[in-house]
Amino acid sequence: MPVRYAPPTPASLLPVPGVTLGAAAARIKAWERNDLLLVVCDTGTIAAGVFTQNRFRAAPVAVCREHLKWQHTTASSFRALLVNAGNANAGTGEPGLVAARAECIAVARLLDCAPEEVLPFSTGVIMESLPVEKIVAALPAAHSAARADGWFDAANAIMTTDTVPKAASRRAIIDGLPITVTGICKGAGMLHPDMATMLAFIATDAPIAAPVLARIASEVAAASFNAVTVDGDTSTNDSFVLAATAKTNVRPIRDFADARLPVVRSAIEEVAVTLAQAIVRDGEGATKFIAIKVERGKTVEECRRVAFGIAHSPLVKTAFFASDPNLGRIVCAIGNHVAPDVDPDRVSFWLDGVLVVDCGGRSAGYREEAGQRVMQQDEITIRVDLNRGEAAATIWTCDFSHGYVTINADYRS
Amino acid sequence: MPVRYAPPTPASLLPVPGVTLGAAAARIKAWERNDLLLVVCDTGTIAAGVFTQNRFRAAPVAVCREHLKWQHTTASSFRALLVNAGNANAGTGEPGLVAARAECIAVARLLDCAPEEVLPFSTGVIMESLPVEKIVAALPAAHSAARADGWFDAANAIMTTDTVPKAASRRAIIDGLPITVTGICKGAGMLHPDMATMLAFIATDAPIAAPVLARIASEVAAASFNAVTVDGDTSTNDSFVLAATAKTNVRPIRDFADARLPVVRSAIEEVAVTLAQAIVRDGEGATKFIAIKVERGKTVEECRRVAFGIAHSPLVKTAFFASDPNLGRIVCAIGNHVAPDVDPDRVSFWLDGVLVVDCGGRSAGYREEAGQRVMQQDEITIRVDLNRGEAAATIWTCDFSHGYVTINADYRS
Repeated sequence: MPVRYAPPTPASLLPVPGVTLGAAAARIKAWERNDLLLVVCDTGTIAAGVFTQNRFRAAPVAVCREHLKWQHTTASSFRALLVNAGNANAGTGEPGLVAARAECIAVARLLDCAPEEVLPFSTGVIMESLPVEKIVAALPAAHSAARADGWFDAANAIMTTDTVPKAASRRAIIDGLPITVTGICKGAGMLHPDMATMLAFIATDAPIAAPVLARIASEVAAASFNAVTVDGDTSTNDSFVLAATAKTNVRPIRDFADARLPVVRSAIEEVAVTLAQAIVRDGEGATKFIAIKVERGKTVEECRRVAFGIAHSPLVKTAFFASDPNLGRIVCAIGNHVAPDVDPDRVSFWLDGVLVVDCGGRSAGYREEAGQRVMQQDEITIRVDLNRGEAAATIWTCDFSHGYVTINADYRS
Repeated sequence: MPVRYAPPTPASLLPVPGVTLGAAAARIKAWERNDLLLVVCDTGTIAAGVFTQNRFRAAPVAVCREHLKWQHTTASSFRALLVNAGNANAGTGEPGLVAARAECIAVARLLDCAPEEVLPFSTGVIMESLPVEKIVAALPAAHSAARADGWFDAANAIMTTDTVPKAASRRAIIDGLPITVTGICKGAGMLHPDMATMLAFIATDAPIAAPVLARIASEVAAASFNAVTVDGDTSTNDSFVLAATAKTNVRPIRDFADARLPVVRSAIEEVAVTLAQAIVRDGEGATKFIAIKVERGKTVEECRRVAFGIAHSPLVKTAFFASDPNLGRIVCAIGNHVAPDVDPDRVSFWLDGVLVVDCGGRSAGYREEAGQRVMQQDEITIRVDLNRGEAAATIWTCDFSHGYVTINADYRS
């Protein structure tokens, strides 16, 4: 069960003008449920994407990047997203690329658009051929099921080993008019068992010019999907696509200095952070949700490195599972990831409000009972003060339990 | 139980002329067993050390470095090593340094030498004050127990959560005369529960000049203690000291080009690799011993980065625990750690003799049963061919089991 995450209700997910979503059962695996999602966007919609840095990137990731580039170069629309669960089309070489392109061609025929206006997503088992014929056969059903309030069904169709669907909506007002942001995602480990992995799609009806949208996508990804970790692995398929349909009567946001931009950006970021945290809250075997804030570092990169260093330490993660305020493990993880010129005698850290390490040593006022009380909570914040600069970063992670080993050791057997 | 590691017998550990070892019970924790070790070396012995890179290094590490520098600068001897188990004297600030120096002064009085000729080691709980008075009180007992065949008792006295003592000996012949290398170490995770952690001491009677000994220590550490990982954490106390007593009648090795050097170096490396592998074989919860060889990379650093990337992936480690030939997880771990200019379509890997991935894709001849057979073994080699250079690196690790979570989640409770 996810840690303090109430899955969305269908009614909580607000339609985004210009976007319809339809799911169908392509039966890629022996599942009864829907496993195929077609998102259709009106002409004039533009998209931006952020993709995995893994060198073995999956075929759909390569095709998404090609097609997005083509859309930007030719000032064309982003018309559709096709997602399948059950097979990642990763590690499949040239035949995998052919399969991903064939899917786009099939969608293009259905919508009467260019294949390059379609983006493919796949998630599931790595190194098995994508059953394109099953996907193409189920496409018309997904197309005819498409409707504006299809977000909840969409979130369900893309699940693999997620225990709950993940989706969120926000409203904001610009120029006196409401704009809507709705998104869905899936993922329960950064790299799932042998499933790959994190997919997120967020749409808004706000009118945003392509260069502005691209920067929002990259900044928002850094603050959300790239700020969470379950086990430190980045999958071959991780993808985040942000779409703007421009289906409102507000003037387009073309300028980075536009005063309305922070409002739109903040609504998008709130949806993205909610989705990203949902992945951690539903992390494999997770029993605790942990925020790690590293402050007063020299650079954001330094703060992120230390935060991820703590988040990835199996010893820190098992201590959280055991509700054990094990200072030594956290100190050690910090010491392994700070820059060589950091002075340990200036570093302090807190478990929630409890000062644990004060300038490199155990705080004089620290009592084990106080640390123990914090560690027993199911949400905990570690705050680290590097005491040498102005930068800061926050990331989120979960603990490391017997459940994680069970899920990952038993998944394929 | 360690994976295929038969602990040494007392008779298998060869005395090193010029070295005596004595253990005693200082009762630093509520243990009945010996927890204090004094190693005494004859005047004329020289030492070199390799220490943790963790920024929060423990007081004894700081003092060891100071004292070794003093020994080299003043051309003095390394006369004694004092090791305690149960308390790491780490995260203890200035009082910790005072305590470590006080120990050295006490040993120096006993041996009538300079305090700087003594090196302190501590392993145990982090962030608690070292009970110097207990150590000083037990010193005379350790001193009077010291004898040339004390290696086995020494290996037992420095254990913390190790399940077996770790020690090894080798003989080599130079100039027609036998030289002896004997070493002991402790450690069962790179960072133990809240214990810190890897300590290793190797002595030889070969006569080796200081600059040559320093280079041997650093090269041997890279090929042994720095080539193993249990959980990726480097502790605040990790230390390796190599001592040469010169108690043989062979001419001193002063020159890097000396033809006898490779013979001595190889005997020392064999002892170090045996000890380092013993740490992994006795790794927390380990059920399998895994060698990871990365070949034909551009640089040794690249090969090591990829090898450690595979070794640290919790998904790969749980797949080993489950005997699951999960190709996707290994491919993904490789993809996350190769350089951005690596062409995935040139990368291949093998599980023992079985070619699994051939130039970026699943090998045509690969059968799951063949992978399964290898994964069921308790010793497995992963070989990765980056196919772009001449460099190579080998590291060793273990799997990630329920036992690991149990040991690390329950240790302090």
